[in-house]
Amino acid sequence: MLKKEIRVLGIDDSPFKKSQKGEVLVVGTVFRGGLFLDGVLSAKVAIDGDDATEKIIKMVNSSKFKSQFQCILLNGIAVAGFNIIDINELAEKTKIPVMVIIRKKPNVQLIKDTLIKINKSEKIALIEKAGSVIPAGKIYMQLAGIGIEKAKEILKITCTRSLIPEPIRMSHLIASGITDGESRGKA
Amino acid sequence: MLKKEIRVLGIDDSPFKKSQKGEVLVVGTVFRGGLFLDGVLSAKVAIDGDDATEKIIKMVNSSKFKSQFQCILLNGIAVAGFNIIDINELAEKTKIPVMVIIRKKPNVQLIKDTLIKINKSEKIALIEKAGSVIPAGKIYMQLAGIGIEKAKEILKITCTRSLIPEPIRMSHLIASGITDGESRGKA
Repeated sequence: MLKKEIRVLGIDDSPFKKSQKGEVLVVGTVFRGGLFLDGVLSAKVAIDGDDATEKIIKMVNSSKFKSQFQCILLNGIAVAGFNIIDINELAEKTKIPVMVIIRKKPNVQLIKDTLIKINKSEKIALIEKAGSVIPAGKIYMQLAGIGIEKAKEILKITCTRSLIPEPIRMSHLIASGITDGESRGKA
Repeated sequence: MLKKEIRVLGIDDSPFKKSQKGEVLVVGTVFRGGLFLDGVLSAKVAIDGDDATEKIIKMVNSSKFKSQFQCILLNGIAVAGFNIIDINELAEKTKIPVMVIIRKKPNVQLIKDTLIKINKSEKIALIEKAGSVIPAGKIYMQLAGIGIEKAKEILKITCTRSLIPEPIRMSHLIASGITDGESRGKA
């Protein structure tokens, strides 16, 4: 049994326009369980770039809270468009388990087709490496460095106000509020 | 008696270096009581500038949550250095009461002397217009559009985890986390 007040880090990116170039804000919120926000981390990653894994590893490893993180929660496997995160490398280099939270069962074939179409087929390997998409209640997850049972326990503790973990919902509110002037929509 | 879940907006600014020029991020968090973060607003104001009142009025008035705000909580009367907020104008033009939260009893004479020294003596009028500094437990407040008793009730509801209202503490964590890469210190 995990404690109700375990510290987890939930990560989400800012919204951006299709025509936009450059970097996008990535926000990490440090939560105790599903209840209290203890801190905020941030980084910038390139739109459709390749630096998300490296930048997020750096953001996590330089945090003063790092030794207390029980888990890193990601809102999908990519940030800033197709800047795909290597979740195994993230788990290895931070020594913290990673859970990818997915709202709707992804159409993996469509994603692969799109990557080929936009000349980013080298990213297909990262998606395949992330492993199978596991159902968990009404949502789905991909895991690195953590078993299914423990991951479900973490969902139970952190999903206090919606279907997705509170730290991801908060990171979404913060990232969109800072970028657009007011937060909107769902994570 | 106010409801425990009244919506309040807590505002704080980002840290910046003394040598820095330009604009500073101002963050507003929308809270239900002292418990739940419902949304995030943001704006940018000039360091030691004169645009804080106007920018904050605009930020509040364009929020989708506006009709629900019972109170605006400010962390001190200025943001971005000496960008002093006209709290009476803020209360009038948003039609929402304003409470300035002050951690330590301010040395008003020292502030006035500094303003004269940096050739900003015209700002002294704004400080004087903000009215008396009222003790409330271990902190102090200045009020516009709200009475002392009701203000104390709002403090009771919003100060759930520290001496200062939770929406201000959150805005501080977010503003410093976004600007510095990791949040730090106390609001």
